[in-house]
Amino acid sequence: MADIQERDKLIKEWIAETAEKIEAAKSERLNIEEKSARNDLVTNMDKQIEKALTDKIRTQFPNDRICGEEGFGDELEDLDGTVWFIDPIDGTLNFVLQQENFAVMIGVYENGIGQQGYIYDVTQKRLYHAVKGQGVYCNEEPVEKPENKSLTEGLLATNSQLMTKDQFSEYRKLADQSMGVRMLGSAGLEVIELAKGNVIGYIASKLSPWDIAPGKVILEEFGFKIRQFDGTEVNLLNRNKTIFATPRAYDEIMTNIS
Amino acid sequence: MADIQERDKLIKEWIAETAEKIEAAKSERLNIEEKSARNDLVTNMDKQIEKALTDKIRTQFPNDRICGEEGFGDELEDLDGTVWFIDPIDGTLNFVLQQENFAVMIGVYENGIGQQGYIYDVTQKRLYHAVKGQGVYCNEEPVEKPENKSLTEGLLATNSQLMTKDQFSEYRKLADQSMGVRMLGSAGLEVIELAKGNVIGYIASKLSPWDIAPGKVILEEFGFKIRQFDGTEVNLLNRNKTIFATPRAYDEIMTNIS
Repeated sequence: MADIQERDKLIKEWIAETAEKIEAAKSERLNIEEKSARNDLVTNMDKQIEKALTDKIRTQFPNDRICGEEGFGDELEDLDGTVWFIDPIDGTLNFVLQQENFAVMIGVYENGIGQQGYIYDVTQKRLYHAVKGQGVYCNEEPVEKPENKSLTEGLLATNSQLMTKDQFSEYRKLADQSMGVRMLGSAGLEVIELAKGNVIGYIASKLSPWDIAPGKVILEEFGFKIRQFDGTEVNLLNRNKTIFATPRAYDEIMTNIS
Repeated sequence: MADIQERDKLIKEWIAETAEKIEAAKSERLNIEEKSARNDLVTNMDKQIEKALTDKIRTQFPNDRICGEEGFGDELEDLDGTVWFIDPIDGTLNFVLQQENFAVMIGVYENGIGQQGYIYDVTQKRLYHAVKGQGVYCNEEPVEKPENKSLTEGLLATNSQLMTKDQFSEYRKLADQSMGVRMLGSAGLEVIELAKGNVIGYIASKLSPWDIAPGKVILEEFGFKIRQFDGTEVNLLNRNKTIFATPRAYDEIMTNIS
């Protein structure tokens, strides 16, 4: 098993290099392709970054496996051993349409247990990270554990589909019990909002393992709940309808939904 | 009539002083009261700032009238002469719950015509402003006019009620035609997103004159449409269901709604 401190140092170097790459490419024209839908995009930058990160991981840690958004990783059927989760650009729509409000995310798991999580807010130049059991940091400064607020006391983050799809009407009623709704369009940035205590929950109707894994490590440091809509543990081999919430807000959400 | 350049200089000084006041009060405990609902809050800071700004205006421009959120202004029945619109803290819920993501806003109108608009994003230390006919600036740097994008090409901002209330189900379908929804919880910050081209429209079910007036001046510089849900001009003596959008997105919204 790798030395966690050494791996932490490497990951931070790689994220800094990635940020430089994104900054340098700002003036270049993006090459944009549609994936599953007209608002599910991938750019040459997503691919370049994932390729570069997977290359680095394979060189340094040849026995580890990788689960990445853009296909440079491995086909996983289990989470045995060390598995890296990579989202090269989380919030690709924001990246394409706004050139801001997106994140680079890396998570490292050992036998399915989250060990290290990293979310880098590229626009704000803020790296949130956690190593299991060692607390949450923002640019190396400790982040204070947010209050365990209830649904009625705080703001609730969701994704767009929760607003627009008929099947989620029950969740919209939930939003009405909160103080208000916020939507940033990036799972990573919503996790940062949770870690800061800016929102008390984030409900998203379709998240992939690389959207969930890095933030899960960070938020579990604060005792937050990360579950599927049906209350079961998230499955990091599949897509999940996912709730991230303070323990109190989570209990209220589950009571109201079931 | 006042010299616009002189007034512009004064407003910028007042906004800088307001920002210092907010910064200095960060460590102090807020005094929070509910207004019309449990998520319609006012703090001692909202009141202090509006009081300070109205005092300055009355001293410098004793003949002008003021329309402010917290009641230190005048009761207006028309928009004759010079009218100032003041929102001391736009996004009070964010201010209270997040201590970030809020704005100070000032608008100046002559006989109902917007002359000057100012939105100061306190967290990001960015002042967006426009003087009628002179373009839009961010911290004195010119802001490029955003593309006239259609609804299907861009992101749509809304307020929470559009998500949660049954009566707005038609608007949720509209959101589905866009690339996705974003919600920041501050009309001023949404106007900044429009001015940057980050979103192509902002639809809000309940905005007061001070929420609308400053941003209207800024967005009209770019030829954006600012209208009520029924297509009529906004009424700056009343609350409005309001659409701010690129001309193309506005036409599509109106076609789809009527």
